[in-house]
Amino acid sequence: MLYLYAPQEADVYQALLSRAMPGREVRVWPEPVDAASVRYAVVWGPPPGFFAGMRRLEAVFVLGAGVDKLMARDDLPSSVAVVRLTDAGMAQQMLEYALYGVLHAQRRMGEYQHQQSAAQWRPLPARLASQTRIGVLGLGEIGGKVAMGLATLGYRVRGWSRSGKPLEGVAACKGETGLEDLLADSDILLNILPATADTRGLLNERRLQGLPKGAFIINAGRGEQLDQNAVLGLLERGHLAGALLDVFSEEPLPVSHPLWRHPAVLVTPHIAAMTLPEEAVSQITANLAALVRGEKPAGLVERARGY
Amino acid sequence: MLYLYAPQEADVYQALLSRAMPGREVRVWPEPVDAASVRYAVVWGPPPGFFAGMRRLEAVFVLGAGVDKLMARDDLPSSVAVVRLTDAGMAQQMLEYALYGVLHAQRRMGEYQHQQSAAQWRPLPARLASQTRIGVLGLGEIGGKVAMGLATLGYRVRGWSRSGKPLEGVAACKGETGLEDLLADSDILLNILPATADTRGLLNERRLQGLPKGAFIINAGRGEQLDQNAVLGLLERGHLAGALLDVFSEEPLPVSHPLWRHPAVLVTPHIAAMTLPEEAVSQITANLAALVRGEKPAGLVERARGY
Repeated sequence: MLYLYAPQEADVYQALLSRAMPGREVRVWPEPVDAASVRYAVVWGPPPGFFAGMRRLEAVFVLGAGVDKLMARDDLPSSVAVVRLTDAGMAQQMLEYALYGVLHAQRRMGEYQHQQSAAQWRPLPARLASQTRIGVLGLGEIGGKVAMGLATLGYRVRGWSRSGKPLEGVAACKGETGLEDLLADSDILLNILPATADTRGLLNERRLQGLPKGAFIINAGRGEQLDQNAVLGLLERGHLAGALLDVFSEEPLPVSHPLWRHPAVLVTPHIAAMTLPEEAVSQITANLAALVRGEKPAGLVERARGY
Repeated sequence: MLYLYAPQEADVYQALLSRAMPGREVRVWPEPVDAASVRYAVVWGPPPGFFAGMRRLEAVFVLGAGVDKLMARDDLPSSVAVVRLTDAGMAQQMLEYALYGVLHAQRRMGEYQHQQSAAQWRPLPARLASQTRIGVLGLGEIGGKVAMGLATLGYRVRGWSRSGKPLEGVAACKGETGLEDLLADSDILLNILPATADTRGLLNERRLQGLPKGAFIINAGRGEQLDQNAVLGLLERGHLAGALLDVFSEEPLPVSHPLWRHPAVLVTPHIAAMTLPEEAVSQITANLAALVRGEKPAGLVERARGY
């Protein structure tokens, strides 16, 4: 039996899963089920204790690309395969989100909006894409496509990843030295790293100070990777020009948080890359079939690595 | 002798032209010259009477892609070749500008900014690029590249031009019926038409009403092509969702104009595609050499057509 936990979109997913797997029994939370008969779970943010008693659980399919919260819980035995979405239309959305931030900074759209509020007609010097250096942190399925997409559009792109993997049009780097070099050369910093113990707190005040004066930050990775207070301080001191932030250390971002009100910060509510139900279900179906055949599914999470 | 009129950037252009054409005498306004000895002029917005007495003038090279103001004057005999820039890095800039407007509308960034001003965390349903229909008016050197660039990024692009020319990934149309069809199918309307007698007043209230409810307008053509009052009225009635406007019937846009203050309108000061001196001079040099050889330069304006 496959048990679905996706309260926001239960109907959509139930219909899609039932159609994609006609031979399989699909049950939907909060419908009570016999935990011992659950073999597969499809979940988005399941509550604590959700997996209790599922002693025949073989695999959990996550309706997203990030699995950090799932990795942190204690009711999921390590024998259970955790499979995340590898793209599901998210790379395209992430490229769009990143591009918006890049264009906002490169084309000085924030400054034009401030001028507009004063009815001020003042053209500002142009910066070309070919003169704009973008540092991309994280070159997985999504980050890699985003980095190559930005390079195709004419930007100077450098990418930082665990392995320093080479990608067409993207200068690759890795390690602490690679990170420092990348930061020093990034007019725009784009973070799309997965949330792991290694990336937590990565963009601390010291590292952010390594960005050139006037840099712009786009955070579409995880809030815990970026020191929000350091960002506010660097904005105040004029070291950073602005930021487009989609993720925060606490979500929803608390109403009283100063990031909401900073004139050079754009806040979006974790919408950079939303899961598309059709593509998600198509991936889950293929991944489940691979598991049944004894093969390794595309989005299998390596527990030790954390993603 | 070549006479330069570009008061804003006279030094830059003088240096670049002198270097590119070492054998040619380059003089710079306001330095007085013998009008009869001017054979070539390189200009950006020359004042009335500028060409008076230049009876041996062979060609005018315009430091831009638009020549409507030059065509409208009476001190330029029709025997003089008028040569405009055909791209000079402007297509890339125009694609960037268009993309910013497209993403602003598609990804609902204006709505997120309004939510931000109220510290409101509320994800809105996503619209995919593949579900977003963009109508592009004008498929010249610049518009064509922009339309194809948007299609490459996954948008559904339809293009309207005088000839209905086919472009890769872009559905072509022409004529009044083609225009009406395009408008009815455009979630986002992008105007990049050249300013001619034919395109003046093209986007009047009747035609704009043909856009689907919730459409977004990007105007990077000429202000005279779009009825600004009709835009304001359609925004008020909720027929249009918003607009990104770079050009206006009067520039600078008067301080008292309500477009400055409309919450769904982004105003930029005619910066969508700025002329890049290096590329402009490289084109002028090649075009002048073509004229001297008796060939047709790339940016030769057809006076009857107006561009």
